[in-house]
Amino acid sequence: MSYLKLREGLPGIRGLFAFRPETAQPMSELAEILLHQPSSLSPGERELIATYVSSQNDCYYCQTAHGAIAAHHLGGDEELVVAVKQDFEHAAVSAKVKALLAIAGKVQLGGKNVQPADIARAREHGASDMEIHDTVLIAAAFGMYNRYVDGLATWAPDDATGYRERAAAVARDGYLGVLSYIQPPAASSSSGAS
Amino acid sequence: MSYLKLREGLPGIRGLFAFRPETAQPMSELAEILLHQPSSLSPGERELIATYVSSQNDCYYCQTAHGAIAAHHLGGDEELVVAVKQDFEHAAVSAKVKALLAIAGKVQLGGKNVQPADIARAREHGASDMEIHDTVLIAAAFGMYNRYVDGLATWAPDDATGYRERAAAVARDGYLGVLSYIQPPAASSSSGAS
Repeated sequence: MSYLKLREGLPGIRGLFAFRPETAQPMSELAEILLHQPSSLSPGERELIATYVSSQNDCYYCQTAHGAIAAHHLGGDEELVVAVKQDFEHAAVSAKVKALLAIAGKVQLGGKNVQPADIARAREHGASDMEIHDTVLIAAAFGMYNRYVDGLATWAPDDATGYRERAAAVARDGYLGVLSYIQPPAASSSSGAS
Repeated sequence: MSYLKLREGLPGIRGLFAFRPETAQPMSELAEILLHQPSSLSPGERELIATYVSSQNDCYYCQTAHGAIAAHHLGGDEELVVAVKQDFEHAAVSAKVKALLAIAGKVQLGGKNVQPADIARAREHGASDMEIHDTVLIAAAFGMYNRYVDGLATWAPDDATGYRERAAAVARDGYLGVLSYIQPPAASSSSGAS
């Protein structure tokens, strides 16, 4: 189904990561820092931004995978994820997160759409420079991940259970912790578990 | 000028890299692999793809910086860079590179714009799976870099000399080799030259 011959059984970006482990590593490190490592924005808030941008980019795999991770971090609240995708201004998230989602939506359309008033709104609701920075970079990075996944026509399962299971693993182990499947065989000689 | 308080004297993405060294590292590693490390596509060809996408995204800093790097790799042929940006189908590049630029242009608009016929055209002119993969990922990655640079309203000099000097350094040292300015002071205690 993909334009490339990818390893079977690995949907979305995972098949591409196995195809090109060299680029998978920094792409996963970037996701780890932006979405999983400690931040004043919770993992659930950051995954909501990633999910919203992926939904605006119409990337089924990314919005479903990150929507499941967001819901996992938010106590299983899948309805909130749907609400944010459909109309975040009226969803049950903080005024600060709404302002950050508005910035992310502008970045999705193109960087120059972000206006001083968008930044001022986020600051009025308490967003720090680092939170604004990370919001713009999360939105920009999903502009990359989404284009990568859809530009090479990867496949995506439609069974929600698999996404929920994967979400629990990502929430527990992070984005580098779930990369073991791409390790080249030669590098795993000293490791029994893979 | 930028929405963030950035270190003075560092234009475009460099000010952002200094602001957030943690994310600068994987973003630079990705550029190093895609644009600078050995590949069956020459550095000049890959930088032309990056420049074209940045131009389609209307990112002045990125298209000027990478245009200068492309020209450096192409023996100083700045007119070819302009020709590719304006109308690559009639520029003096190979049929394979034209087909890859066409794919990159589709990815810039959104991943789902890439059609089987675009991939078939590239294969007809000898593009390998890895070359198609890297073209899509370069285009996707510049979707990120461009949005990051413009979404946070960084400044860009308009003097071509500075871009040419920087291009020579990037062509010589690569994308990780030009990152020394973001090293935190504490990490450079054992190094005299920085």
